[in-house]
Amino acid sequence: MPGSIFGTLFRISTWGESHGQGVGVVIDGCPAGLPLEVRDIQLELNKRKPGQNKYASPRKENDKVEILSGVFEGVTTGTPISLIVKNTDQRPKDYSNIVDVYRPGHADFTFDEKYGLRDYRGGGRSSARETIGRVAAGAIAKKILKEFGITLLGYTRSVGPVIVDMADFDASQIDENLFRMPDEAKAIEAGHYVDDIIKEGNSIGGTIECVVTGVPTGLGETVFDKLDANLAKAVMSIGAIKAVEIGAGVGVADKKGFDNNDFSRYEDGMLIKETNHAGGIVGGMSDGSPIIVRATVKPTASIHIEQPSVTRQKENKEIMIEGRHDPVIVPRAVTILEAMTALVLVDALMLNMTAKMDYLRKIYTI
Amino acid sequence: MPGSIFGTLFRISTWGESHGQGVGVVIDGCPAGLPLEVRDIQLELNKRKPGQNKYASPRKENDKVEILSGVFEGVTTGTPISLIVKNTDQRPKDYSNIVDVYRPGHADFTFDEKYGLRDYRGGGRSSARETIGRVAAGAIAKKILKEFGITLLGYTRSVGPVIVDMADFDASQIDENLFRMPDEAKAIEAGHYVDDIIKEGNSIGGTIECVVTGVPTGLGETVFDKLDANLAKAVMSIGAIKAVEIGAGVGVADKKGFDNNDFSRYEDGMLIKETNHAGGIVGGMSDGSPIIVRATVKPTASIHIEQPSVTRQKENKEIMIEGRHDPVIVPRAVTILEAMTALVLVDALMLNMTAKMDYLRKIYTI
Amino acid sequence: MPGSIFGTLFRISTWGESHGQGVGVVIDGCPAGLPLEVRDIQLELNKRKPGQNKYASPRKENDKVEILSGVFEGVTTGTPISLIVKNTDQRPKDYSNIVDVYRPGHADFTFDEKYGLRDYRGGGRSSARETIGRVAAGAIAKKILKEFGITLLGYTRSVGPVIVDMADFDASQIDENLFRMPDEAKAIEAGHYVDDIIKEGNSIGGTIECVVTGVPTGLGETVFDKLDANLAKAVMSIGAIKAVEIGAGVGVADKKGFDNNDFSRYEDGMLIKETNHAGGIVGGMSDGSPIIVRATVKPTASIHIEQPSVTRQKENKEIMIEGRHDPVIVPRAVTILEAMTALVLVDALMLNMTAKMDYLRKIYTI
Amino acid sequence: MPGSIFGTLFRISTWGESHGQGVGVVIDGCPAGLPLEVRDIQLELNKRKPGQNKYASPRKENDKVEILSGVFEGVTTGTPISLIVKNTDQRPKDYSNIVDVYRPGHADFTFDEKYGLRDYRGGGRSSARETIGRVAAGAIAKKILKEFGITLLGYTRSVGPVIVDMADFDASQIDENLFRMPDEAKAIEAGHYVDDIIKEGNSIGGTIECVVTGVPTGLGETVFDKLDANLAKAVMSIGAIKAVEIGAGVGVADKKGFDNNDFSRYEDGMLIKETNHAGGIVGGMSDGSPIIVRATVKPTASIHIEQPSVTRQKENKEIMIEGRHDPVIVPRAVTILEAMTALVLVDALMLNMTAKMDYLRKIYTI
Repeated sequence: MPGSIFGTLFRISTWGESHGQGVGVVIDGCPAGLPLEVRDIQLELNKRKPGQNKYASPRKENDKVEILSGVFEGVTTGTPISLIVKNTDQRPKDYSNIVDVYRPGHADFTFDEKYGLRDYRGGGRSSARETIGRVAAGAIAKKILKEFGITLLGYTRSVGPVIVDMADFDASQIDENLFRMPDEAKAIEAGHYVDDIIKEGNSIGGTIECVVTGVPTGLGETVFDKLDANLAKAVMSIGAIKAVEIGAGVGVADKKGFDNNDFSRYEDGMLIKETNHAGGIVGGMSDGSPIIVRATVKPTASIHIEQPSVTRQKENKEIMIEGRHDPVIVPRAVTILEAMTALVLVDALMLNMTAKMDYLRKIYTI
Repeated sequence: MPGSIFGTLFRISTWGESHGQGVGVVIDGCPAGLPLEVRDIQLELNKRKPGQNKYASPRKENDKVEILSGVFEGVTTGTPISLIVKNTDQRPKDYSNIVDVYRPGHADFTFDEKYGLRDYRGGGRSSARETIGRVAAGAIAKKILKEFGITLLGYTRSVGPVIVDMADFDASQIDENLFRMPDEAKAIEAGHYVDDIIKEGNSIGGTIECVVTGVPTGLGETVFDKLDANLAKAVMSIGAIKAVEIGAGVGVADKKGFDNNDFSRYEDGMLIKETNHAGGIVGGMSDGSPIIVRATVKPTASIHIEQPSVTRQKENKEIMIEGRHDPVIVPRAVTILEAMTALVLVDALMLNMTAKMDYLRKIYTI
Repeated sequence: MPGSIFGTLFRISTWGESHGQGVGVVIDGCPAGLPLEVRDIQLELNKRKPGQNKYASPRKENDKVEILSGVFEGVTTGTPISLIVKNTDQRPKDYSNIVDVYRPGHADFTFDEKYGLRDYRGGGRSSARETIGRVAAGAIAKKILKEFGITLLGYTRSVGPVIVDMADFDASQIDENLFRMPDEAKAIEAGHYVDDIIKEGNSIGGTIECVVTGVPTGLGETVFDKLDANLAKAVMSIGAIKAVEIGAGVGVADKKGFDNNDFSRYEDGMLIKETNHAGGIVGGMSDGSPIIVRATVKPTASIHIEQPSVTRQKENKEIMIEGRHDPVIVPRAVTILEAMTALVLVDALMLNMTAKMDYLRKIYTI
Repeated sequence: MPGSIFGTLFRISTWGESHGQGVGVVIDGCPAGLPLEVRDIQLELNKRKPGQNKYASPRKENDKVEILSGVFEGVTTGTPISLIVKNTDQRPKDYSNIVDVYRPGHADFTFDEKYGLRDYRGGGRSSARETIGRVAAGAIAKKILKEFGITLLGYTRSVGPVIVDMADFDASQIDENLFRMPDEAKAIEAGHYVDDIIKEGNSIGGTIECVVTGVPTGLGETVFDKLDANLAKAVMSIGAIKAVEIGAGVGVADKKGFDNNDFSRYEDGMLIKETNHAGGIVGGMSDGSPIIVRATVKPTASIHIEQPSVTRQKENKEIMIEGRHDPVIVPRAVTILEAMTALVLVDALMLNMTAKMDYLRKIYTI
């Protein structure tokens, strides 16, 4: 029954429920000698935390991370890094209406079926708070990648019908709007759209994307642990994701071979790829072009509209979910997409170190 | 450097290159007591083998599978099952034109970058022949699933612009046409379309789908080894796949919560789900509805059109790929999609056996 | 770089250093529905904690465990159980004498060689405090085993030259003496012996043993994950252990086949084994007889005698280790041996659930 | 149900039964660029094959290995290496006397209990032929180690009461006698002793040892995947092994700290360790001294003396095992000990490549 451990060499083990003592992660396999301080992790956590604005859940959490082990005198020691974020806003809320009724679109029914019981407070382990461990570990992964010139840029591609035209892409806008869209005008449009969604008590889906640049060639293992395969797993493991695409993604379905193949040429000794339909991954290995991962996010399952459902006692019952929830989780999912992408890449970077004898020879000399 | 091993409890280890002695798979973890004969595996292999018709690669291979171990008196013994398919059609072909030039859309460049060398004969390990091991192991997985009433149905959803309307879905047609489409008219239309593609020397992409029925609730592990996450990895690890979707997939991007949530009710004691946008997986666990996995297949990289490319010696060079290739690999990918889906499900079935103390109590009694 | 994660299905991930914020463990894969409270774990931790008596290290630690996740309303939920024990006695001690000098018999030199740095405070990750996570997780493993009638009994077999004669074995004595010896007279003798060792400022080794009864047949996987193989790894991974034996162990070296084979017979329908030289494991699988694991513990490396050594700066230097240390770690190692044995057994119990189709049929019915 | 897969990065997957089509192994993770030919593997296999002399089983097997994949133009490609050895001497022997009766000391009873059935021909999967895959993979591991100046020397330490005095150690004798003893006189003495054992129809145990020199410092991962822990598992997983020791092993039980600690000093800039009680491993990591692994081998279970036993039908029955068997398996176990030791070391060598950022920086430069 594996489940909460991810990665092969850079392995993370997350734990925690919505209303337990806290949430956290243990990272096993972080190389020694990486400068690391709380701030590196806290900055990433701040991007995903709730209660930030009117489009996000109002739960108030400081989400202050503590480093409990694995760092000595500001540097990683090569031993497990244990990170914890204590829960502070577990108000003695009234959950009586969901103890027995399964919330549509939530994992209430499946948890109960699998385990024979569930922690119904705030979704228990299936709460979005579980992603804190992912983001915290991802912050460390990002820091390693940065040492090697590998950078990640995540953003929102669309919110409901409001879609960013890549011709208008402006990276400087991403951190300037609540939707993390790389286009100011579209972000304003999305705001109007979501205001209406909130009025209905409804929610909306969207798409997010992450572009990785500076990736060395050859990352990814044939034939199952391909880079795209591991990215697909990592991204699909995020709650609410229903589709993962690499590069041209679903768009290749009606493409012809000549139009889809990316052609390379050397220009002044530099290898140039004119197109990047492959999204930087060919045969499961990075080809040096930017890696492009895209995910589709479903609308928030919790809505402020009465919904039909069933109970543990096998009766039909209408349910009205209390409190306010994110009308759109797309912007917060961007941070998690970046984290999961970083985790896969740092693992691939480490796994690739044993691909050829020449690498071993660089490290072990007699 | 893991790579060619897949699965946690039902683990397969594939090996073999296009032009080596053969290809094969070792299955470690198949439960003892499963009746198994060569025929069970051969039938599946026959579905993926080349040289079947004008739309597929003309390589002639019998693809006869041999069981080398793990089966005694017609029944699995619980020890590793080794399966081998010898290569017979490795003609001493002239590969001189691809030894140094990288074929666009193929893994030639990335293999060379990763390993510092590559077996250029027929793509080496990145050949489609690698999937023989997957299909052979998948046949055993399917047989186990069948014992518990779990059945898989794979088919082609679209070939280029020719898309099956699910209202016309006719399962009986799937094995009746070369495209494995569940709609006779659309299969004929696709035939005309692909005839034109062949004339251009080009290729075309498409989409494939697999529906699994009879799945028990609760399969899949929180939070990383979710059923959809493992399916995403399994499917994305198939060469040529660029997108994986579960249920409504990319369609949820502009859906509202109320429209996307699936509502349940009891009717005469039976749990009914009116819709299945979730594709049978909620919170990473099966909910008892049919599981729906969809994948987008890119157009075959090998085409009969001159393409610009580069050489190992860092020069620009045009390449014309010899021989004839599948103008569309979509239909053959259906078999592999079924195999990978089956492998994930049987692994999930086995992993789920330790989910609760009640299951342990059923097996161990004092 | 795996390292701090152990187990396949019942997986533990330990973290923490001697002088960090604390030590802990995350257990991933504990089945849902196991009643669990702090007390279950605390009782085991109390057995290994320091400062208990004159033969053990005087470090004062309460070693109070907290359950941070995975338990709801007194029962495990099937999600990760995070346990933490905060460090309280990390006095601002003077480590200046060991920052640069490597302590003989300790991992100072090897840590520095491997990671390029080390946390020299109290041994950092190589401290005996690391075993707290093992014992805490082991307590849960023991509780699961107990549900199925499997019980563990650990004890000290010898302290230096003082060896328990198994003919005098008295289980009731184990918790009555500081050495955990199953023989009162020998425990008194060991006390006199160790008093002399303390006077010399020296330390002494010994042997420990764990007997497991009530084990179902068939636990252990062929051919690498054999029960004895996994026990050997688990036990050898405990610091200070230099040998692991199963059953007759090193004694079989000069035994003849006829004398070493264990003979079975049925008596009144009961299977009787007259001898148990195999220690309950044949062909890597449990045969229903008591499992016997024995380990040899080296003398504590820290002694109060001046020793020659070398520095990080590659100079020779005498070292005198400050403070008082356990003159014999053998008794405390008993608790850890029990914990590791329990962890291996519960993992084997879970892995064995997929050994045959009949087991699957017991859980999944259509 | 893992079992037949071993290793983390250099992973081997063995398969095959005594009387199936053959036995083999798939090696996943061998770095690309290693020169490899059949001869490299065949030489090792020749050392373990039966029918070599009067002290070994007379089964006639050529044990010719074939490389089916993973090697191209004499060099490893980085993709799985599949090796097969066909069985040729599976004579249609009469197994009727062991179909129902369990042979004492063999895994007949435990296999049946675990899987509900077993391949009784020659022990099925529990046959010594299973070790062919280990030795074949070990040959490749040895070749990698040799590139880095790491060499292994295995030999027999004792046969029954005949024990080699390490003061008389003569490596040149190991390949000169049938017992692989590093002392000519003792080998002759052992011969006389075993001649008597053969006359009684009995068998005898012994001890074997492997010394590894040229090991870099820092191999082994804290805290579970310690080098000694992984060696213990690897060695204990060999059939017939009942004890594993590192360095001074069971001898440390009555040693004092001052006598057991190994002291280091620099002499002319060279680090010297005067003793090596630790056997080259401290804190689970290699310290640069020779690694010393010792194992105790039980007497062959098959003997030519009537033994009491039980049947599948739960009856008591005497059994007389047909044919002739190795009176002592100790010499053949030496080859397997070397193979398993090599496999653990090459895996540790590869895992260690990600221990510190400095290693990553050596490989990835921006």
